Amino acid sequence: MPSVPKKIVTLGEIMMRLSPPGHQRFVQADAFEANYGGGEANVAVALSNYGLQTSFVSKVPDNALGQAAINHLRQFGVDTQHVARGGDRLGLYFLETGAGVRASQVIYDRAGSAISQVQVDEFDFDAIFDGADWFHTSGITPGISDEGAELTFAALKAAKAKGITISVDINYRKKLWSKEKASQIMPEVCEYADVCLGADDTIGFPVAELNDGEFNPDAYKKAFEDLKNRYGFKYITSTIRKSHSASDNSISALIYDGTDIHQAKQYNVRIVDRVGTGDSYASGLIYGLITGMPAADANEFGIAAAALKHTIPGDTNHATVAEVLTLMGGDASGKVQR
Amino acid sequence: MPSVPKKIVTLGEIMMRLSPPGHQRFVQADAFEANYGGGEANVAVALSNYGLQTSFVSKVPDNALGQAAINHLRQFGVDTQHVARGGDRLGLYFLETGAGVRASQVIYDRAGSAISQVQVDEFDFDAIFDGADWFHTSGITPGISDEGAELTFAALKAAKAKGITISVDINYRKKLWSKEKASQIMPEVCEYADVCLGADDTIGFPVAELNDGEFNPDAYKKAFEDLKNRYGFKYITSTIRKSHSASDNSISALIYDGTDIHQAKQYNVRIVDRVGTGDSYASGLIYGLITGMPAADANEFGIAAAALKHTIPGDTNHATVAEVLTLMGGDASGKVQR
Amino acid sequence: MPSVPKKIVTLGEIMMRLSPPGHQRFVQADAFEANYGGGEANVAVALSNYGLQTSFVSKVPDNALGQAAINHLRQFGVDTQHVARGGDRLGLYFLETGAGVRASQVIYDRAGSAISQVQVDEFDFDAIFDGADWFHTSGITPGISDEGAELTFAALKAAKAKGITISVDINYRKKLWSKEKASQIMPEVCEYADVCLGADDTIGFPVAELNDGEFNPDAYKKAFEDLKNRYGFKYITSTIRKSHSASDNSISALIYDGTDIHQAKQYNVRIVDRVGTGDSYASGLIYGLITGMPAADANEFGIAAAALKHTIPGDTNHATVAEVLTLMGGDASGKVQR
Amino acid sequence: MPSVPKKIVTLGEIMMRLSPPGHQRFVQADAFEANYGGGEANVAVALSNYGLQTSFVSKVPDNALGQAAINHLRQFGVDTQHVARGGDRLGLYFLETGAGVRASQVIYDRAGSAISQVQVDEFDFDAIFDGADWFHTSGITPGISDEGAELTFAALKAAKAKGITISVDINYRKKLWSKEKASQIMPEVCEYADVCLGADDTIGFPVAELNDGEFNPDAYKKAFEDLKNRYGFKYITSTIRKSHSASDNSISALIYDGTDIHQAKQYNVRIVDRVGTGDSYASGLIYGLITGMPAADANEFGIAAAALKHTIPGDTNHATVAEVLTLMGGDASGKVQR
Amino acid sequence: MPSVPKKIVTLGEIMMRLSPPGHQRFVQADAFEANYGGGEANVAVALSNYGLQTSFVSKVPDNALGQAAINHLRQFGVDTQHVARGGDRLGLYFLETGAGVRASQVIYDRAGSAISQVQVDEFDFDAIFDGADWFHTSGITPGISDEGAELTFAALKAAKAKGITISVDINYRKKLWSKEKASQIMPEVCEYADVCLGADDTIGFPVAELNDGEFNPDAYKKAFEDLKNRYGFKYITSTIRKSHSASDNSISALIYDGTDIHQAKQYNVRIVDRVGTGDSYASGLIYGLITGMPAADANEFGIAAAALKHTIPGDTNHATVAEVLTLMGGDASGKVQR
Amino acid sequence: MPSVPKKIVTLGEIMMRLSPPGHQRFVQADAFEANYGGGEANVAVALSNYGLQTSFVSKVPDNALGQAAINHLRQFGVDTQHVARGGDRLGLYFLETGAGVRASQVIYDRAGSAISQVQVDEFDFDAIFDGADWFHTSGITPGISDEGAELTFAALKAAKAKGITISVDINYRKKLWSKEKASQIMPEVCEYADVCLGADDTIGFPVAELNDGEFNPDAYKKAFEDLKNRYGFKYITSTIRKSHSASDNSISALIYDGTDIHQAKQYNVRIVDRVGTGDSYASGLIYGLITGMPAADANEFGIAAAALKHTIPGDTNHATVAEVLTLMGGDASGKVQR
Repeated sequence: MPSVPKKIVTLGEIMMRLSPPGHQRFVQADAFEANYGGGEANVAVALSNYGLQTSFVSKVPDNALGQAAINHLRQFGVDTQHVARGGDRLGLYFLETGAGVRASQVIYDRAGSAISQVQVDEFDFDAIFDGADWFHTSGITPGISDEGAELTFAALKAAKAKGITISVDINYRKKLWSKEKASQIMPEVCEYADVCLGADDTIGFPVAELNDGEFNPDAYKKAFEDLKNRYGFKYITSTIRKSHSASDNSISALIYDGTDIHQAKQYNVRIVDRVGTGDSYASGLIYGLITGMPAADANEFGIAAAALKHTIPGDTNHATVAEVLTLMGGDASGKVQR
Repeated sequence: MPSVPKKIVTLGEIMMRLSPPGHQRFVQADAFEANYGGGEANVAVALSNYGLQTSFVSKVPDNALGQAAINHLRQFGVDTQHVARGGDRLGLYFLETGAGVRASQVIYDRAGSAISQVQVDEFDFDAIFDGADWFHTSGITPGISDEGAELTFAALKAAKAKGITISVDINYRKKLWSKEKASQIMPEVCEYADVCLGADDTIGFPVAELNDGEFNPDAYKKAFEDLKNRYGFKYITSTIRKSHSASDNSISALIYDGTDIHQAKQYNVRIVDRVGTGDSYASGLIYGLITGMPAADANEFGIAAAALKHTIPGDTNHATVAEVLTLMGGDASGKVQR
Repeated sequence: MPSVPKKIVTLGEIMMRLSPPGHQRFVQADAFEANYGGGEANVAVALSNYGLQTSFVSKVPDNALGQAAINHLRQFGVDTQHVARGGDRLGLYFLETGAGVRASQVIYDRAGSAISQVQVDEFDFDAIFDGADWFHTSGITPGISDEGAELTFAALKAAKAKGITISVDINYRKKLWSKEKASQIMPEVCEYADVCLGADDTIGFPVAELNDGEFNPDAYKKAFEDLKNRYGFKYITSTIRKSHSASDNSISALIYDGTDIHQAKQYNVRIVDRVGTGDSYASGLIYGLITGMPAADANEFGIAAAALKHTIPGDTNHATVAEVLTLMGGDASGKVQR
Repeated sequence: MPSVPKKIVTLGEIMMRLSPPGHQRFVQADAFEANYGGGEANVAVALSNYGLQTSFVSKVPDNALGQAAINHLRQFGVDTQHVARGGDRLGLYFLETGAGVRASQVIYDRAGSAISQVQVDEFDFDAIFDGADWFHTSGITPGISDEGAELTFAALKAAKAKGITISVDINYRKKLWSKEKASQIMPEVCEYADVCLGADDTIGFPVAELNDGEFNPDAYKKAFEDLKNRYGFKYITSTIRKSHSASDNSISALIYDGTDIHQAKQYNVRIVDRVGTGDSYASGLIYGLITGMPAADANEFGIAAAALKHTIPGDTNHATVAEVLTLMGGDASGKVQR
Repeated sequence: MPSVPKKIVTLGEIMMRLSPPGHQRFVQADAFEANYGGGEANVAVALSNYGLQTSFVSKVPDNALGQAAINHLRQFGVDTQHVARGGDRLGLYFLETGAGVRASQVIYDRAGSAISQVQVDEFDFDAIFDGADWFHTSGITPGISDEGAELTFAALKAAKAKGITISVDINYRKKLWSKEKASQIMPEVCEYADVCLGADDTIGFPVAELNDGEFNPDAYKKAFEDLKNRYGFKYITSTIRKSHSASDNSISALIYDGTDIHQAKQYNVRIVDRVGTGDSYASGLIYGLITGMPAADANEFGIAAAALKHTIPGDTNHATVAEVLTLMGGDASGKVQR
Repeated sequence: MPSVPKKIVTLGEIMMRLSPPGHQRFVQADAFEANYGGGEANVAVALSNYGLQTSFVSKVPDNALGQAAINHLRQFGVDTQHVARGGDRLGLYFLETGAGVRASQVIYDRAGSAISQVQVDEFDFDAIFDGADWFHTSGITPGISDEGAELTFAALKAAKAKGITISVDINYRKKLWSKEKASQIMPEVCEYADVCLGADDTIGFPVAELNDGEFNPDAYKKAFEDLKNRYGFKYITSTIRKSHSASDNSISALIYDGTDIHQAKQYNVRIVDRVGTGDSYASGLIYGLITGMPAADANEFGIAAAALKHTIPGDTNHATVAEVLTLMGGDASGKVQR
């Protein structure tokens, strides 16, 4: 842990997640386990668990459910003073956990949530970014509503003006907006970003073609260079996942540092909870970069963190830096620690 | 149970109800128990449990949560063939169960639910009311949205045209609509009704004044007569509740049969679940009237049913006719039945 | 605890009890809490918890469920070496826990259980009663089947032959056998008994008449004397229960010592679990008598033990001697012990 | 889903299933999860979930547990008006869920259940088969008791008389009856059947020899032809299972259409719940055939449905037609659906 | 809530609390519900829930359990930057929840906990009390160990030096230290205090005698005056509890403002969780005084807060200011809030 | 089961084990599942489950938690009359269950436990070893405290004097004592032992070197011979584990019978609960040897027992002899037993 911890700001939605116990299907459920999460909230929690200072920017309703979402973040040390209160409801999503040949199912119920009705003047970006080293957001908030997009751009501008490093996770969700609309907005978002995660065709990265067939380093390199040239990214990353079943996946990740591509080790992961693993990669990568690791190491840290997240229930990663480093160092034996 | 069971149709919303286990507060909950309910759905389930034929008219989303709501109703024998499928989401409500000096709390999250977006032409009222003896609805659906109000009026007209007995539970909910709007719509609803439950000032019944101080039979009689004269009701009922605490209440009910007021026995109830007890009164009353009990007995049946419901978790009553009759007959000793 | 602990043998059925969590009704249950109990098994466990030596005589099937029943008894120190193994199935009963005006419900599913098919020669009564000071059984086993009755008589004879004190709890259960048959068998059982609990009309004690109206000491005394004269009982007891609701009862007990009637203190009890409270009285009474308390004190110990049992989930009492003595001594304040 | 849904009638027992949570052994259990199932009931539920009309013929006791079994079926849309009420008890079975090298254990407790005491005249087969397209039953009910066998034959005759397609799952259970008795009864049952599932040596199919060693198409074909010639079956199926451990199996299935054998794709399945997977194959096969799929496709649909069932807790399949088709179409990746 | 929130510092131990579910006894428990609490930690959480700034001073072990204790505090907004990390173990206590005539039981397992091994130089009191308005501690920490006493005095001195208001809850625990030792240390602690809660004979307040018999205002006044004269307290409070049973208590409280005694309303409370109710009174009182309420009102706020806490599971109060004010204003009806 | 069951005495600590449900991390837990275990206690329970007589020697506190630990042992038939009562607390350990790449975590909280404060004169070794055939202990108790070591030596001497076979499981735990101290004490312990399990470098067995690289029978033989020559062991065993992940291991074991090394079959195990699997090997080995199996078979029995334990939650094995023999005989298919 650095002696003066770095400070990261993330902006996004925090939702209540409701999932039937074990592998029950929705139609079998008499109870739901409650968690709280959302891409950027998950990044804030994980970075806080790594010992960094974090602040989350969002909006939740002024009722006990909104308070519970805030409490979830505070529990893990995330600063929530810049979460606005108001609006009609807390966004929800329902998650059914698959196994083997049966995929997990998500039912979003986030329309009309507090953050979809947000106003830029509810936030004081001078205060928010005071002392911040990094700002992270994603393509989700711009996809939620026009108000969400406005808020995103306001934050990006404020962060840029202060010279803060900016990372963006593209994270296109087809249930939120059309590919057409995303292809208009996300390139503009990318103009502000130093680090790009999850690049896809909404910003001109042919990810589907690249993953069609064997890994082709040259094709990847060309595509990364194109992105770099277009948006000025310092780092571009792309995770690689082979989904053998809902219970077993293999994962790795690529990072492009403007010159070279580095591929991380591949992990075979037994899945306890698949949701939020991309956010765990993102937070691991940010941790690596912000604490000065070389790009290849930050990428390794990110994917090892993601591998651990697959074994942890809930949206958020509760691995420690030491645990990630141990796994990254090669010990995946899972021997009892006593 | 009658040899040819009577058939009752009810119309309303069915919601998923999410409640923290035991007496946890919302901010303490890591899991929610899931139930399904709503005023008119509760009435249908209770009447089905009494051995009558019931059909529920509503709309739920075309996803697994909507299916789960339908399954809940089918489980207890309610016919759901007239529940339309579509719309954006299932209405939800969150319930925190109080105790002693701490009141239970409800957070509604039903805006934008499937039934709020309903269209009249999604329903075939000829088929719905085929063979029906009774139609029951309430002031909730008209309060949800203009579409809900239109659906309510369409159903009332169709039922009236077929000469079906109609009951309406006023059930004013201030979080749904203003008293002004309710005072415009509900009198019109009452024009169709034969039986009026839960009369209040939105239809000109000064319930607050009547309950201010000692029970005044003359004042009540005057008020009942006014209502009868204005709307042509055959029966008017009014439940009387003394809330000693969130754990202990005393309940009774009045029925006016156009001539006399009959007051039911008073029950001291230990509260396991307070929600849906009014609907239990309604379904008990309907059961009594439709099976030919005198008004006073039907009222007794209704309030005994409501007393039992206070001890049953969830929105819906699962007492049998025999159990209600036993309690109504005077055995409230709670001795183990073995 | 006495320096050389007394040894008590009890004979009866042990069943698996399955109850829906909390106050759910059977039709709402997706899970059942499992306990093990039965009148005489409950007595053995409670006496073992009081520090006495106990042995239970019964029969359970030779499968994992029979083993689980034995394990339950062993857990609390009951000697199970005289539980025979074999037969078709473990007796079960389902318990729905009422509240307030709603009574608890029991569904027995014990037909064809191992003990109903028992043979006398499966047991070595010489070994069973070796060193025993007391034998306790009830009217349940004779009611289960003719084989159960034969086993009971064989045990009574063997105990009598060894001069062991014998107590019998009449415990008439109308779902097991007719009053006619019980009235033939139970008087014969009583011929062996020194202590009679739960006397009723099957043995000529007009308990219903005696409890009809105010407590009439003279009538009670006359009835006790009649019983004593007929069967030669040394002690006769009768518990008195006022069932205000399924949540609140008042309890007391009478003991007749051949000369006088002593009435125990009355306790107002909040009910967590009503089942097995009579067995708790029986075991408390036996504890008192076997450790040399005067009859009046043994009766007080019994009813205080029963009062505590109302607050403990499951069939069996887990109060300690110290706790019973504290309550018996007058401290019913329920103050936190820390 | 077909515009006029087909109607399938199934006949059999429905039992309560009680299983310790997770991988607990019976001797560790303090609670049991409750489900309801039985071969033919499972088929009815799955076909109802596929959008077809289903009716279940059985008998359950006239108590709350019998009601709960009926409610389970109604919940998923199965018509239960032809379930008779009466008899002594609901059949039960206890299931301990194994893992890895430890097999799951079943303890049946179904002797004396309501259906074992059934009388043919409790059922109106004219009404039962009115409008029905298919009748499905198995070798379980004839094995339960002579009354069960009589009921089965009465139903088979009535269905045959109406020209309804009949399928029989041989499903020999050694704890119910001897191989000798089954070998007398089951061939007679097969005389009525158009489709035979799970053929074994009780009807002259040498399944053990056929599965001893490598798959031998010629030997299989010969055996299928023999069966066809003997009983006149239109289709004969045989599932193929390799049990690597209690956690991982591989499954496939053969169908013989009177001319050719078609082998379905093999699935490697991670096991959440192994029980009822054969019934899922049966219901998938029936769905395929009744909706007009070629035999090979119906067989593929059946085995894909069975593969999905391995991941779903409880006896019954809650996969949708769309989900089965997706898996059948080759997507076994288990990627989160959002 | 004040526009510039007041800041309160509390110092004490935070323990993990483990309690069997519902009313199970320790010997019946297969699981324990985990909460975190301790007198001064509970005060910090409640005041944070009221919208004030709070900081907790303590020490927890540098492992995941210590982290979990910190997370519990952070969840409700308590600043934990001044919680030292180290030492051998987290203090624990086990709580068995009584009912009716059965008292709750506490087994402390706090010997050797991190805070018992604390060193004064692990804390920077200048930073801790920077901007603080109030310091609250109790007689527990001095009772834990000599190191605990030293820490307490160091904090009291530092707070006094900064002119911060100091409250002390005497809270004598006989399992921690002897009355003799407490009577040496606590008077010295009181020298620093402005507000004294829970005065008892360790500081010369004859609380047992005062509560023996009817409330005697003169005797109380005399005793309060004596304390005031001896220690210079500005306010002295004393709660009054009548323990009818483990399920029902009546509570009130006295405050002496240096001139007059004010007695608060009496509440009849149904008990969900008795632990931490004294701390809820303390936090309510502090809230009232620090926000400028007259002493009588602060006392009313405190006792209303305590009444609400009886209905909330866990050690800590999660009532809002609005809820306390509503109860204080007279609405104890427990009507559903919807 | 042998007709006169052998009697085994084991000596050690029994702790309460607290584990978050499923795969939750410590910081996510709101409840802990409670089990009781400890190396030698686990051996006693498993041997009792195999039908042998067992007695456990230990010390637990004289409170309800100590009683619960005793009850756990009694439940499975272990004689606990030689468990002393007293001391300050029950030892605890917290277990977080890993999965895949995430290792399980243990936090011990056993300092100051009852057995660490034990006195030799609290035990009557003449009575303890009366009729005993075998004594088993391990390197844990000597590591707990000097008192623990003294108790161990006193027991070893008493057993040796009576000519009882002695087995010792080295079981070095670095959190209990230094390797230096263990290397002084354990060789002395081994002087008493006939059977040595888990040999390591504290007694001069270079287990790390031996397992570095491919299995080298010659090197192993040499090392076994050295041990035998030094300590006079009759049998020496060594388990071999390949930890692929926290979810999947492969296990086998070697036994040296003074002449030859026998290697048991290797099992691929799916892990439900990893803790106590070494104790399951030990108890299986002892069962084999004490019932007269050849060393190679006893070793096979031990490792098959260990394989089964990986699938059973809790510290203790609940496999039966028949189940172990079935697995040992080659059936690892995990097919449902019905």
